Amino acid sequence: MEIEVKFRVDFAEAKRAIESIGAAFIREEIQEDVYLSVPLPELLRVRRITNLGRSFLTYKRIADPGRNEEFDELEVEVSDFETTVEILRRLGFIEDVIVRKRRLVYRLEDITFELSEVEGLGAFLDIEVISDDVEEAKRKIWEMAGKLGLGEKDVEPRLYQELIREKAKEKGE
Amino acid sequence: MEIEVKFRVDFAEAKRAIESIGAAFIREEIQEDVYLSVPLPELLRVRRITNLGRSFLTYKRIADPGRNEEFDELEVEVSDFETTVEILRRLGFIEDVIVRKRRLVYRLEDITFELSEVEGLGAFLDIEVISDDVEEAKRKIWEMAGKLGLGEKDVEPRLYQELIREKAKEKGE
Repeated sequence: MEIEVKFRVDFAEAKRAIESIGAAFIREEIQEDVYLSVPLPELLRVRRITNLGRSFLTYKRIADPGRNEEFDELEVEVSDFETTVEILRRLGFIEDVIVRKRRLVYRLEDITFELSEVEGLGAFLDIEVISDDVEEAKRKIWEMAGKLGLGEKDVEPRLYQELIREKAKEKGE
Repeated sequence: MEIEVKFRVDFAEAKRAIESIGAAFIREEIQEDVYLSVPLPELLRVRRITNLGRSFLTYKRIADPGRNEEFDELEVEVSDFETTVEILRRLGFIEDVIVRKRRLVYRLEDITFELSEVEGLGAFLDIEVISDDVEEAKRKIWEMAGKLGLGEKDVEPRLYQELIREKAKEKGE
């Protein structure tokens, strides 16, 4: 199970805070995510990490819909982004939302910090733990959030694709 | 476009004939193919090549249904066979037929020879050309078939998964 909590942050401030608690910088990723039309609580995504030249096909099932902090995830690396999207198109899935972001990945013990600048949405920090013990994972996440000065008021429960969709509606697109 | 004609052959005899016309041996593949439940003329397959440790997700659309010699094909390599099958299962596709074969791949110019011993079905030779010129491709395939002593009577138009399904019915499975 993938357990994560997403916070709205100031990018530079969050970066300083993460580095100050001793998390190790792992890598930078320039991501382009295509979400395909499967109904919630399921997600189907093809991700291209352009700066690394790698692509992934990911299926997620949200275990706590609405809250969106617990995910059952299946992922494989694929050799070609466009062909994978095209196979899914042929199978009847529709390209729904595209999310583009620049992400810095940090790690401290078994906790992953994903600090993202999302095109059109601003900056977010996902604090993530892979574990089958949801309670213990959440305890760890909130302990880290506390150290970074983040609280319940900073939580963004909506998925990136929901935020992008709402943004598009606001613009009257 | 992938153009291929499948012939029923005697494995050892076909092997000798292919080698005698100067085709180069490329590799041996031990394949396990899972076909998922999409309606013809579409095919959705996850292939594991166990001896090479590689797996592929393949979508095909048969351009000449019934004859089954012309295929519009999209394929990506995937990092994990089981996870890919599981993602497709979660998306609602059902594992339909499993085809297991030992395949020897040969090449002569732009013609590929796939000589297969298929579990439960016997030996087959697929002569394949990748081209957008169907007529020219078929001419090349039949010229090669002639050199190998194969004729119209040796053609097997049915797909491997159709043959497996028919075999299962015969056995009353």
